[in-house]
Order: sequence, then structure tokens, then C-alpha cells
Amino acid sequence: MTITTTDPASGITTDTGIEETTDDQVARITAAAAAAFEHLRGTSRVWRAGLLRALADGLEADRTSLVATAAAETGLAATPRLDGELTRSAFQLRLFAEAIEEGGYLEAVIDHAGDTPMGPGPDIRRMLVPIGPVAVFGASNFPFAFSVAGGDTASALAAGNPVVAKAHSSHPLTSKASFDSLNGAGAAYGAPAGTIGIVYGQRAGARVVADPLIAAVGFTGSLGTGRILLDIIGERERPIPFYGELSSLNPLIVTSAALAARGAAIADGLFASFTGSAGQLCTKPGIAFLPRAATEILDAMVTRASAAAPQPLLNERIHQAFGEIRERLIEEGRAESLVAPHSGDDGFSMSPAVLAVDAADLTEAVTEEAFGPLLVIARYDDLDEVKAALKAIPHSLTATIHAEEHEWEALGPVLSELEDMVGRLVFNGYPTGVRVSWGQHHGGPWPATNTLHTSVGVTAIRRFLRPLAWQGAPETRLPEELRDDFTGIPRRVDGVLRLATLLK
Amino acid sequence: MTITTTDPASGITTDTGIEETTDDQVARITAAAAAAFEHLRGTSRVWRAGLLRALADGLEADRTSLVATAAAETGLAATPRLDGELTRSAFQLRLFAEAIEEGGYLEAVIDHAGDTPMGPGPDIRRMLVPIGPVAVFGASNFPFAFSVAGGDTASALAAGNPVVAKAHSSHPLTSKASFDSLNGAGAAYGAPAGTIGIVYGQRAGARVVADPLIAAVGFTGSLGTGRILLDIIGERERPIPFYGELSSLNPLIVTSAALAARGAAIADGLFASFTGSAGQLCTKPGIAFLPRAATEILDAMVTRASAAAPQPLLNERIHQAFGEIRERLIEEGRAESLVAPHSGDDGFSMSPAVLAVDAADLTEAVTEEAFGPLLVIARYDDLDEVKAALKAIPHSLTATIHAEEHEWEALGPVLSELEDMVGRLVFNGYPTGVRVSWGQHHGGPWPATNTLHTSVGVTAIRRFLRPLAWQGAPETRLPEELRDDFTGIPRRVDGVLRLATLLK
Repeated sequence: MTITTTDPASGITTDTGIEETTDDQVARITAAAAAAFEHLRGTSRVWRAGLLRALADGLEADRTSLVATAAAETGLAATPRLDGELTRSAFQLRLFAEAIEEGGYLEAVIDHAGDTPMGPGPDIRRMLVPIGPVAVFGASNFPFAFSVAGGDTASALAAGNPVVAKAHSSHPLTSKASFDSLNGAGAAYGAPAGTIGIVYGQRAGARVVADPLIAAVGFTGSLGTGRILLDIIGERERPIPFYGELSSLNPLIVTSAALAARGAAIADGLFASFTGSAGQLCTKPGIAFLPRAATEILDAMVTRASAAAPQPLLNERIHQAFGEIRERLIEEGRAESLVAPHSGDDGFSMSPAVLAVDAADLTEAVTEEAFGPLLVIARYDDLDEVKAALKAIPHSLTATIHAEEHEWEALGPVLSELEDMVGRLVFNGYPTGVRVSWGQHHGGPWPATNTLHTSVGVTAIRRFLRPLAWQGAPETRLPEELRDDFTGIPRRVDGVLRLATLLK
Repeated sequence: MTITTTDPASGITTDTGIEETTDDQVARITAAAAAAFEHLRGTSRVWRAGLLRALADGLEADRTSLVATAAAETGLAATPRLDGELTRSAFQLRLFAEAIEEGGYLEAVIDHAGDTPMGPGPDIRRMLVPIGPVAVFGASNFPFAFSVAGGDTASALAAGNPVVAKAHSSHPLTSKASFDSLNGAGAAYGAPAGTIGIVYGQRAGARVVADPLIAAVGFTGSLGTGRILLDIIGERERPIPFYGELSSLNPLIVTSAALAARGAAIADGLFASFTGSAGQLCTKPGIAFLPRAATEILDAMVTRASAAAPQPLLNERIHQAFGEIRERLIEEGRAESLVAPHSGDDGFSMSPAVLAVDAADLTEAVTEEAFGPLLVIARYDDLDEVKAALKAIPHSLTATIHAEEHEWEALGPVLSELEDMVGRLVFNGYPTGVRVSWGQHHGGPWPATNTLHTSVGVTAIRRFLRPLAWQGAPETRLPEELRDDFTGIPRRVDGVLRLATLLK
């Protein structure tokens, strides 16, 4: 069977000519990944940093065609949206190259043999080593930065693992073009065959997760699909780590004082944040707590949403679910429709929707994540109502609060509540536009993610590493980074952290 | 219903007078833990280091009665075994106190706002924060160091979390005495009520794992019980991390050259390692690959095992399973019995058993973990046979190799194979006697553990922490450790690792 692709702007489906990957092909692709792992695990950090930079250069060389392909498959704007996303993919690869050159990510520890309160202790040395071939399931909404050329691939390769990506059904041609770009640049750099693989079709994706040669799974997508993959992992003879980024409502709170001080700017920011990329960002604020008395910002949301033109959603499923979830919020969550969305003439376009509830009436029925340009406004009279209402909101990737300097102390209880619920707390800003940096954390308690890990930022590399300890090992059998006279990376030696003394 | 306890040396069961914890009591205990968390999470690292040291002092003050209680319930020798284990528990608490004072475990990162290749980036600061109340399921074989007063409790408290321990059915009185000691010392130090809780009975343990107020589970025990707890977690509305240390065969390989150079010492070491604590250590070498031609070491194992007196096993279940597994190894694994074990006159005692197979005939049927003093010797002619046979051995906590200096290069392929299978590779030593230190790793690929984490060593604290990021936060809302002018812990600032400049 061949794979089709659909232009969300027109709704027209065409045949890509790409065949679904057969079971035999999956087995060959994972075997090639396993063979590549035997080579990659022995490569130096400097070599892998060079590989990541070669891949970044390759993506940028193919920028024009990649962006055009993605624009036709996703309906996202070529500029600045997709162009910026490609830049982000390349930036991420280069940042991870820096990180592995620096070497702190290895968490190297040396405990020399010696007397301890427990008697003589043997020499113990520990660091993180690559885990093995990684399956990567990208997201519909980020055809570059969270897909074949995205953060999971960059993390896995940085750690020293090959990747088997599953092409996304919403952007198979972009997946293929990304694979071709990475694979071509990798081969030119000297990466072994099998360093990056790709499979097409749902069955092939499931086979990859079940394959004994696969060591970990990175996934960005729905809670439902995440659970299906978790079930497959549960049936493996040897379960493997699954890193899922699954679902997020991202509550946002604005105080009266903040609105009084900068209401117009907050209206601009909030509208842009929930409608950008047609509201299809995992950090989109899905619910905003606004003071009931501050009617200007409510009016501003209504005015802007009513005037906004429809934007294409990524695919027919999202388009249909958007309408269904909105109806459920009204029927079961008893939300009031302030702005009803309308579809465009062609394809899967949709204009923004605004709903309202009273914070005091908020129930779990009104906190379902709606992928697309939909905002629920929860009107409140005082912040105790907000604190109580937060109990009905599922754990999320982010929470955001807008307040004035003099309010922070009084807001302590609300902020503590928010810290428990999320992986990132945003002050006087917006959750969308996730900075790729050393300290970023893009994760959160279930159902935001199923683990304690991040899929954005340098610590994302950690997902695809495992600790290994060597006891009493001869110098020649230790990785270079754990030898006594090596000082090129930060290490903890006999309990004391030491900086690298040689720069690369 | 009351809880009973059995002396493994006599087999005599007595009533402890302790009632099984009811569902209502479980709910009160987890609620107390949740209340304690609200206090503990706000405590300083210095305060918590003091708490850990107070608990260590308390255990040592109660040493005589704790050791006597454990000796009567476990059949393990009071000296040096249990006395040493109590020292280990206290040492572990003090080492973790040092670690949290040092502060590197927080993984603090500061990315200041600034221009990036992606445009202006917001201020992002990340560190690890306590996860919440932790359920601790201790092991039968370490009534102190892996039980109520063990590494999971030390890790959880160090991180800032309360603990709800489940008393072990094999040593309920030791569990209670440990709890009383910790709880008393904690209260005297000023820890809030609910910092440490305990429940009795299997049903109560299951209720704790299912309780929505519990945030993570630490478990040391069998694969079977581990799977039951994982199933309970799978049915929770919000699944939580489960850190299980489950099963391990711990292969050991000896080369001809090593035997020629120090055969007598290896015979001593191997015999002590598989029979120490009656073979009931999770790192016990369960299978030893020995050169077929080197008959002296085989003879030495047979002679010593035949002459050894029975030692009490921990409980009736282990005693019975030991015999059953040995029979399965002979029947299904086609192992040859070199030394048949014999029971003692009373209780659950058992003398060592030695079996043999040809490495070339090794199948998964002969690699079942037998808890107790049983060693399978796999005879080999050349190391290629060993490398092939390793494929039949389940992933383990450790692997051990004895060889001479000139052999390491030729052994490369075998060593690589071993590195893939385990969490710790021991050179010319023994896997038992796990050093508690900064670099220790006590974990391994499934089924050794179900995660990538360790339950021994300083990095065990990491299990009970989660990352949290603050974006654009006012200084007053940041944890002290993330403020600009704080320099008391190592931090990564704008990508550059910096050491602490103020020592406490």
C-alpha cells in the first residue's frame, strides 16, 4: 500500500508514491541501526559533534525545498513559521554539539580505592553511556523541530545512538525529505549506514517499538497513541524506556493589577499565544483566568477572535476533533460560547473560538485539551477561587502568571500550587516559544509527560543514556573520560567536583 | 489480623502483636505524609543534612537492640553481618547529608535572558525539586540497608520527601524497630509528624501504591512482586515513577591465565561471594564461567561446598524455592549436580549447592536466579563459547571478569558484550560488597531494574526529584540556589559550569 498526503489548505489528497514499510523491511532497518550502534558507540564526542554540525549544515542547505514541502503538507506558514522551525532544528543540533564537546552530560564520577568507614572500598568509576537504537515518533505540529530532524533525533545521535524515525502520517513527504537530508549529510560526513533510518505506516511504527533491537522510544503526540505504544512496550520481553510528551492545558492567570498596568500588551500577547500556528502548540494556553471585573481584556479577545480569518489546521482529524471538543466543553463543561469559530471555504481551516466559564464552576469536563485556536476564559472574583479551580486542571507542561511586583508574596499559595502541577512556570510572559537552551525543561507530571524527562533543551540528551560503573578496571579498559590523567571534561573525583582544565 | 514473625533458624512462628494496617489507617498515614511534604519541601539543605545525621546517630544509639531483633528474624549473623549493615545504613545517611550540602545533585542551571540565534530568549532557570511522598518497599535480605532504614528512605528524605515504608513480612519487628528509631530521632530533631510512616500487611502495601498522594515507589524484591506493583501503578489515574530492583544472575568469568596466576585466591573469593549471607545477595554471582581444563578450582568449589554447614535462609518461601529452582536447573537446564545441598535439622537452613553445565549447552532454562547458596559452573574451552553463551543470560546488575593484564585487549569483544548486559562491570574482584559512594551504580537493563536509575550511591537521590524550570521569575520567587548572587553550589550559568565559591 502506498502512503498519501493531504494539503490542509485545500483538503486535496495525493499519492506520495512511498510504499508502507513491510515487516521484513522493518527488521532490516532495525538490524542496520543495531549494526550502526556498534560503530557509533565507539566514536568520540568530537566526532559526534562534527556529525551534528554536518546535519545542521545539511538541513540549512536544503532549507528552501524542506520548507516548501512542509508548507504544502501542514498548512503552516512558510515564513516565518516553518523557516524559523528549520532554523531551530539546526540550532538544536549545534547546541547539542557544544554540549557533548563540553562533556558534563556524561556525569563522570571517579571514586578511587581507599579506606572508608565501611572498610576498604574498591575503585569505582561511573559515567553515562549510549543506550542503543532509538525509535523516534514525531509530532504533527512541528514537522522539523519535533519530527525526523527534531530534538529526539538530535538527542539520540548526540548520546551516540542510531535513530529509527517513523514518518508522520500528516507530513510523510516532509519526513522523507528530512530523512534524505540528514542521511545524505551523515553519509558524506562518514556516519555508518543505519545511523538514521525511517519507516512508513502505522503497522511499521508499532513493529519498531516491539523490535528487540530498539532500546528506547521518544514520542510526541496524543495521550491515546502514547498509551497504545506503552501497551506494546509492556508486552515486550524486555520493556524499554518510553519518553512521551502527551497532553497539556497550560493554565494562564492574570491579576487585576497586571491588567491595570499593561492590559493592552497582555491582550496582544495572549491572543498571539493561543492563535499562533493555529493554536496547535503543545504549550498553547488553553485556559486563562481573568478577573471578572476587567471586561476590557475579555472584550479584546472577543473582538480579535471574531475578526480573525480561518487558518488551516494540520489535518482532517484535528479539524474534526476541534469542533467535537468545543461542543463537549459547551455541553458537558457548561461553558458559554463567546466567539463561535467558522471554517474556511476549503480544506481544514478554522477561525479562533473563545469560551467562558466561571472559575467557581470549573470542573474537569471543561479542561479537555483542544488542539487548535480555542481559549477558555475562566472569570474569577478573587484568587482563592483560582487556587481552588486549579484542582480541576490536569498537570501540564507549563503554567503562566501575570502579576505586579508587589503581588508576588500574596500569590505564594497559588504559585506553590502551580509549581506542583507543571514542569515550567512562566512569569509575565507566554508559554509558547519554548527556548532551546541548557536549562530548559519541557516536561511535567502525568499526563503532560510520562516521565521526569524533558524533550527540549540540553538535558534531553540524558533520556538516551544509561549509567555504567566500572569497578577496579585497568586503565586501558576505561573510556578515555574516566582515566586518571584525562581532564578534558568536568568530573567528580572522590566526591569533589572538578572543572575541565583543557579546553577542546 | 495480627502480623506474625518467624525465626528462620528454628522455624518457629510467633505473633508480633502488630495489627495489619487498615484502609482507613493507610489513608491517614498518606495524608500525614502529604502534610509533612508541605513542610519538608520548604526546608533548607542544611536542615535536611542535619536530619539525616540525627537519624544516623539514632540508629547507632539503638544498634544493640536493632541488630538483635534483625538476627532473630533473618537468621543472618549479628556480627559482622548485621552489625556491618547497620553501620552501612548510618554511613549512607551521612554520605547523603554531605551530598545535599554540596548541592551538585540539584543540577542547577541558569540561562540569562539574551539574544540567541533564535531571537531574544527569556530568562530560564532549572533545578531539581522533591517529587512528593515516596513509598518504600524494602528487601528481605537487607533488613537495614535496603529496608525501612535503607537507601530508598535516605534518598527520599535527602531529596526533601516524606516516606511511607511497608514493613517486610520477613522482618516485621525489625521494620517496626527501625521505624521507631528513625521516627523518634526525627521528631527529636524537629521533623514534622508524617515525615516517616509505616504500614503492615500486603493489602496495606498495595493501597499505599494506589494512593493518589503517593508520588513515587522505591522497591527491592522479586520480579513477580515488582510486576504486581507496576500493574497497580498502571491502573492509577496518574501513573507515578516506579524504581524497582528486581532480579540478577551476575555472571562471572575466569580465564585460564588468571587461574594459573592466582587460582587459590580466586577459589577463596568466589566461594565467599556465592555463599556469603547464605547466597542471599542481589549481586551474588549465580553463574561462573571456568576453563574446563582448570580442574583445581572446580575441585575447590566442590570440596568447600561439600564441607560447608547449612546456614539459615531468610524465610520458608526462599527455602522452598531454592530446592525447586535447583531441581528445574537440573531437569530443564540439564545441569549436572556436583554438590547436592542438605537442609539443617531446624528451620530453613541449607548448605551450598554446586551445579555444572557446558557453556556450549547453556540455555535460558539454566539461568534462573536461585536466591541462596547456589552456583552454576559453566565449563568452557575457549572464550568464543563464553561470548556466545552470554546471549542466554538475562541482563544483570553486575558482571565480573578475572583475567591477566596481557589479556584485556583480546577480551575486548567479551567485555563489550558484558557492558551491554549490566550496570556494573567488576574487574578481578567480586560483585558482592557494593560500595556506597558517589560513583556507585546499582542498576541495569531489564530485568535487573525497570529503569535507568541506581538504588545505591549518591545518584540514588535523583530518583525522587523532578526538574522544574522558572521563566522570567522575580528573584524573590526563585529558590535560593537559583538566585544570581548565590554561589554556594555548583551551577551551570549561560552554559558554563561553575564551582561553588563559598564552602559551608
